[in-house]
Amino acid sequence: MRVGVIGGGQLARMMVPAAVGLGIDIAVLGEGPDASARLAVTAIGAAGDADAVLAFARDVDVLTFDHEHVPQPVLAALVEAGVAVRPGPGALAHAQDKLVLRRRMDELGVPQPVWAEVADEAQLAAFLDANGGRAVVKTPRGGYDGKGVRVVTAAAEAADWLADGPLLAEEVVDFRRELAQQVARRPSGEVVAWPLVETVQGGGVCREVIAPAPHSAGRIADIACDIAMTVAEALDVTGVLAVELFETVDARILVNELAMRPHNSGHWTIDGATTSQFEQHLRAVLDLPLGATGCRDPWSVMVNVLGGPEDGDLDSRVPGLLAEHPTAKLHLYGKAPRPGRKIGHVTVTGDDLDDLVFQARAASARLSGTA
Amino acid sequence: MRVGVIGGGQLARMMVPAAVGLGIDIAVLGEGPDASARLAVTAIGAAGDADAVLAFARDVDVLTFDHEHVPQPVLAALVEAGVAVRPGPGALAHAQDKLVLRRRMDELGVPQPVWAEVADEAQLAAFLDANGGRAVVKTPRGGYDGKGVRVVTAAAEAADWLADGPLLAEEVVDFRRELAQQVARRPSGEVVAWPLVETVQGGGVCREVIAPAPHSAGRIADIACDIAMTVAEALDVTGVLAVELFETVDARILVNELAMRPHNSGHWTIDGATTSQFEQHLRAVLDLPLGATGCRDPWSVMVNVLGGPEDGDLDSRVPGLLAEHPTAKLHLYGKAPRPGRKIGHVTVTGDDLDDLVFQARAASARLSGTA
Repeated sequence: MRVGVIGGGQLARMMVPAAVGLGIDIAVLGEGPDASARLAVTAIGAAGDADAVLAFARDVDVLTFDHEHVPQPVLAALVEAGVAVRPGPGALAHAQDKLVLRRRMDELGVPQPVWAEVADEAQLAAFLDANGGRAVVKTPRGGYDGKGVRVVTAAAEAADWLADGPLLAEEVVDFRRELAQQVARRPSGEVVAWPLVETVQGGGVCREVIAPAPHSAGRIADIACDIAMTVAEALDVTGVLAVELFETVDARILVNELAMRPHNSGHWTIDGATTSQFEQHLRAVLDLPLGATGCRDPWSVMVNVLGGPEDGDLDSRVPGLLAEHPTAKLHLYGKAPRPGRKIGHVTVTGDDLDDLVFQARAASARLSGTA
Repeated sequence: MRVGVIGGGQLARMMVPAAVGLGIDIAVLGEGPDASARLAVTAIGAAGDADAVLAFARDVDVLTFDHEHVPQPVLAALVEAGVAVRPGPGALAHAQDKLVLRRRMDELGVPQPVWAEVADEAQLAAFLDANGGRAVVKTPRGGYDGKGVRVVTAAAEAADWLADGPLLAEEVVDFRRELAQQVARRPSGEVVAWPLVETVQGGGVCREVIAPAPHSAGRIADIACDIAMTVAEALDVTGVLAVELFETVDARILVNELAMRPHNSGHWTIDGATTSQFEQHLRAVLDLPLGATGCRDPWSVMVNVLGGPEDGDLDSRVPGLLAEHPTAKLHLYGKAPRPGRKIGHVTVTGDDLDDLVFQARAASARLSGTA
């Protein structure tokens, strides 16, 4: 069996060990020879280049993705050519366009922030008036890691973006914390859920994940799981789905965004769960039975490694990290360290959450060059 | 950092996930394009072809091995060319030639079976007379998985092998069970040991491994660990060393054989230990600090998957295995299933050893086509 992955980032990279274990051949259409997933890159090309994508897809049994940026016309051409595209174009549309997502969540009755589509400054001003004078404004497409997101208090602050088309305006949610619920679904219908996790963001980027989310057993975990299962089934998602959630100060759970691929909030599963999100994604897109999703230890803590303030020599920092943290599991992405860029992550698992958070942060800081 | 591996078997294949995590580039000199480690094969050539091996070694920082079959003259040429060869030729000689090993173990005072070098039938007959009329006869070089090993009761039974040179004759050890002790050592001297494991052989091939070895805490584990540490240091081993041991019916521990690379007895570490033997091997040969070697669960059971009685379609058996054993960790080697050939392994971990053995055997049999 041969799986093709569009995009050669760290998510494709981390599918490689899972493919090795399952005895699956994996091929990647990478952006260049230095792609994070370069070990499995068999063709170079852009995700928007229909010819390159179609040529690549000819040699694989199933096509899946490192990211959601394959344009719908290219996806349609793949389906037309008989390629098994998982997740399919209809599902992916909800991860590509935040307005499509918001409309659909309303139809499904899934709780989400108050929102509106705003086509001009007058509509945005009206939304601001109705929502306490502040709003989160998002470009419907292309945003990630805090890009394409802005908090505004006056309509003029979004004038530049409005010139390019309608925007999504959302209430500024008063949240206690952010959570993420991951599920996996295969074409034949089986759906499994990992434990709900807590995610800590900084500068629009995921910084830390604690699994399972502390103080969430019972009602909150049940609601989050129900939401993710509902979304996976209603949108016919195949593969892994991550639902980013807000837990509000008044204890409601609201859907923030979706990702239909392995996601930063699930990196802990490599070391902390019986089945990792990368193995599960491959199993799901190949329509193989899904694996157990339980935690291997009471707690897992994942901390991202971001490129530090100086362009440092990452290799020279690795020995110190390994010497000081013999139980930490290091995952480097083979990417050049630029300030703020995700270049790896560290996971520790065990019984003592306080100690694990300390260890994971210290290990990550060691690599970032900030410790 | 770039590690080169001579040989493209399943051991090289299973180094790939470890390299991905550590952010190390890995290149493999494979026997052909269908090698088990084909994902990382960058050159095709035989381990005995000095030109091919030297050309391959030019692009790597450290050279290591999937097997011990690189001839000493080729190893010498590599060292001469300035290549970092780990383990080095002097250490590897003990894994390549069983007579060299037996002599050295005697020098070190390490307990081992009664043995003799026999050059002709008269010498073998004398050894048989002195050892109860039975002996294990081994070709000094080239044997593995039961090949090159024969139990004889008359010297004539080894006449064919004696025509090719001296043999190793050993007493037939009356053993209670077989054990294996794995350690890892880096050039700067750090040595770490995993827990002692019990190995179950069948037809000369490793069938099952239980980690840690039941009923071995204390004296037996201490002796095994001391032996492996002594051997690793005395032979200047770098990388992973597996010492195969007999536990005799009178409770002695005797050295059977050595392997200076990741070994079947350590496959359980991928899923059952904090640091796998494959990650540790890469860390050790790169002289990076070594990782923690503790068990992640009270018990781990690894069962090999051998090609079954019929040349079956392995792919068609995978869904049944995954459906029936959602907690089993499957590792397939991308090899065509021929009867008796090692094509993969399954590991399960947990609290209940009886249940784990049952699960792992059932899962393996499912894949072999024998269940």
